[in-house]
Amino acid sequence: MSSTSHLRSLNINNINPHVKEAKYAVRGELAVRSEEYRAKLAKGNAGLPFEKIISANIGNPQQLDQKPITFFRQVLSLLEYPPLLEHEDVLLNQLGYKSDVLERARWLLKTIGSVGAYSASPGAVGIKDSVARFIEERDGHPSDPKDIYLSAGASSGVNTLLHVICSSPNTGVLVPIPQYPLYTASLAVLDAKCVPYYLDESKGWGTDLEAIKTAYKKAVAEGTDVRAIVIINPGNPTGASLAEEDVKAVIEFAAQEKLVVMADEVYQTNVFIGKFHSFKGVLRNLQKEDPEKYKYVELASLHSVSKGMVGECGHRGGYFELVGFDPEVVEQIYKFVSISLCAPVIGQCLVELMVNPPKEGQPSYPLYKQEWDGIFSGLKKRATALYEAFQEMEGVECQVPQGSMYLFPTINLPAKAVEAAKKEGRSPDEFYAFRLLDATGVCVVPGAGFGQKENTLHFRTTFLAPGTEWVGRITKFHKDFMEEFR
Amino acid sequence: MSSTSHLRSLNINNINPHVKEAKYAVRGELAVRSEEYRAKLAKGNAGLPFEKIISANIGNPQQLDQKPITFFRQVLSLLEYPPLLEHEDVLLNQLGYKSDVLERARWLLKTIGSVGAYSASPGAVGIKDSVARFIEERDGHPSDPKDIYLSAGASSGVNTLLHVICSSPNTGVLVPIPQYPLYTASLAVLDAKCVPYYLDESKGWGTDLEAIKTAYKKAVAEGTDVRAIVIINPGNPTGASLAEEDVKAVIEFAAQEKLVVMADEVYQTNVFIGKFHSFKGVLRNLQKEDPEKYKYVELASLHSVSKGMVGECGHRGGYFELVGFDPEVVEQIYKFVSISLCAPVIGQCLVELMVNPPKEGQPSYPLYKQEWDGIFSGLKKRATALYEAFQEMEGVECQVPQGSMYLFPTINLPAKAVEAAKKEGRSPDEFYAFRLLDATGVCVVPGAGFGQKENTLHFRTTFLAPGTEWVGRITKFHKDFMEEFR
Repeated sequence: MSSTSHLRSLNINNINPHVKEAKYAVRGELAVRSEEYRAKLAKGNAGLPFEKIISANIGNPQQLDQKPITFFRQVLSLLEYPPLLEHEDVLLNQLGYKSDVLERARWLLKTIGSVGAYSASPGAVGIKDSVARFIEERDGHPSDPKDIYLSAGASSGVNTLLHVICSSPNTGVLVPIPQYPLYTASLAVLDAKCVPYYLDESKGWGTDLEAIKTAYKKAVAEGTDVRAIVIINPGNPTGASLAEEDVKAVIEFAAQEKLVVMADEVYQTNVFIGKFHSFKGVLRNLQKEDPEKYKYVELASLHSVSKGMVGECGHRGGYFELVGFDPEVVEQIYKFVSISLCAPVIGQCLVELMVNPPKEGQPSYPLYKQEWDGIFSGLKKRATALYEAFQEMEGVECQVPQGSMYLFPTINLPAKAVEAAKKEGRSPDEFYAFRLLDATGVCVVPGAGFGQKENTLHFRTTFLAPGTEWVGRITKFHKDFMEEFR
Repeated sequence: MSSTSHLRSLNINNINPHVKEAKYAVRGELAVRSEEYRAKLAKGNAGLPFEKIISANIGNPQQLDQKPITFFRQVLSLLEYPPLLEHEDVLLNQLGYKSDVLERARWLLKTIGSVGAYSASPGAVGIKDSVARFIEERDGHPSDPKDIYLSAGASSGVNTLLHVICSSPNTGVLVPIPQYPLYTASLAVLDAKCVPYYLDESKGWGTDLEAIKTAYKKAVAEGTDVRAIVIINPGNPTGASLAEEDVKAVIEFAAQEKLVVMADEVYQTNVFIGKFHSFKGVLRNLQKEDPEKYKYVELASLHSVSKGMVGECGHRGGYFELVGFDPEVVEQIYKFVSISLCAPVIGQCLVELMVNPPKEGQPSYPLYKQEWDGIFSGLKKRATALYEAFQEMEGVECQVPQGSMYLFPTINLPAKAVEAAKKEGRSPDEFYAFRLLDATGVCVVPGAGFGQKENTLHFRTTFLAPGTEWVGRITKFHKDFMEEFR
């Protein structure tokens, strides 16, 4: 504690202890150091052994040169400055806007009024209609716009849901390990219990129902009031993509134990093997087969404009759909979101564009399709290149990339490296990640930031950075590292 | 409780009790009913005694036809679709963009990369630089960009600060009554104590140091750990604007009792009488006069793009500046904001434009000045018209409008109206506001939603709606209401 802290109202020992307990390594010490390096490089003459920082620590596609989809951004430019629509001829003939861009902008402006005005707290009505239609088409089952809540990215939706779910320090939420640390951080801030269940690395990081049951039973036996289960599909940090059977198994378990299912499906378009099975779609199928058993399952499924081929993190747009919730609980969710007024309206519009993109035959479709496919195949290619590089690296084991934007390889480090880490007061994976950053400028997140089984070590890297030269940098570093500590 | 609630995980009796306790009347039952009326009117043939809803319940300027500032929106259109910048000739000669619009867009793009990428969690560095320069010019004292945190509107900043401040159910925060209900709602959710201090209606709703001291002493005597004081200046819902002496008095009290000062200054440009005195500027003056006494005062001052002549609520942009906080506490604030990644980047850019608008001599200045002055004088005119209407109304007393976007008149209602309200299970001011809405389509918020002294009744209305016809509607309703219940 600093020597002047008794002179102030707040000090490290008297502020909210639950905020202190929260951990969020994705933007922690490593990320801070990488930004310091970036600032040094920008000033030139940095004396660093690399010329560029590769921020593979965070799923931030446009920071790593992923180009925005033209249709989306053209519409948004018109929403920001509607007088442009008075120059239809200039837009169409000189600036390359297509007629469907203008139509969509006019329709959105009619729906929302102005992007500078607050919308209704759960989101603009017309946009929620589009989201519901998208879900209907995706799943082949009806969706009600009243069940849709537009949010500032999926993170804000998770925050809302956990706020309502967590009622005491005894509330437990089943969270996969490894997980995206938003979940453990939010549970820590809310002073509720994370009930960890381990994913099965040997099966491509899929869910293991037995592991879920064991974790649940243990928590219940200890007196924890387990109320919900979080599933991240496709997986973050793991890159897994669940089979339909796995989704079914989780829903069946949730129905049996009366658990809210929180389905984090922000990577639903980043699927490289098989196809995406939405929890909502699978639930509705199960409800048809056995209405009694599944009638009251509570499901909140989340989506976002930040990931996939959209990659518009900075716009903070997203939504969640509520299924099966008690109406009195829904009223409280409405009130809670109203306290923060509304999600960014331009982000809401981007949600509309994401769920209702140009269709075949429409003027903007060919370019949209070309851009979408180009980003998708680029991601797949880089995932594969990275995976292959890991296959060649001594002591590194990596699952085949199935989905999302990440790989999460195991690293088996020599005993001497483990000792050296200990001396620095760091975990071995953290030690490795700092060494990697210092040597190559590539910033990854140690497995400890997501949780991992005892006596295993991992790191998470995105495969968003363009080119594959940086993959070579990792390979070389790893070889040197293994030599140094052999 | 519903008959099926035992079949679900969540019901009204087991969810987070603190969420349930939170109240947020600005978007409560009245607002919901007004939206139902609006939907009916949109479908035509509503059978309602009015043709238009006037949402005077919420400070949402652009919903009520306030036009966005051209310079701001032109820059934002280029940020959303940067390829427009390749058509400089078209922009300048056919679309009416000025050269400084293009320059600013290019500079912002260089600073942030893409509006679709996450920024650093406390905000983009270049934008924080601009905010610091704005504060320096406003106050005549230095400001450090490192102390600036860009937020999703001021609400999100308040949420961050209260999260860190509130450490137990025993933490108390001094909140003015009447207040903007974000404060009481957030304290309820965080399970901390609101320590109310009453503003002095007889002195134009100014702060009354004796009232603050009394409230503080009472709370401390009851064992509450009072840590902070909230000041809303200019006032919401009151429309007050504090004199320099009042600001000084609050800071002196905070220094003496070691309280964090949370200065909600989102209406700093909405001042119609006198001038705005920022807490930061006044604090720095006091620190020059008596460094020892004021050295460790902790001040967080908040601002936003939502109000003033900017009126861009939908963009969710804002910032707060931290002064005098313990570095270890600041670290926790950084971590907390990093969990929600970053404020909307286009909103951050709008903050930059707000704090660094076109200067005299620059091409966009004349139009900017004209638009700004037009909005300002329109607000002032409507505030005066409304004030004058209230002066004529039986049993209504209203303070002279000094600032912000609201008037908060006292209403003295006949005993029969109070009885009729009781029968409906409503407070008399709520009863009055529902009657007003049903009869005129004008939606206001009853004083109960902000807090008011016992045995007094008020309502808050914005003066944002264009024209003054709706003021006439209120006058007529009030006359009829008084007749009915005489």
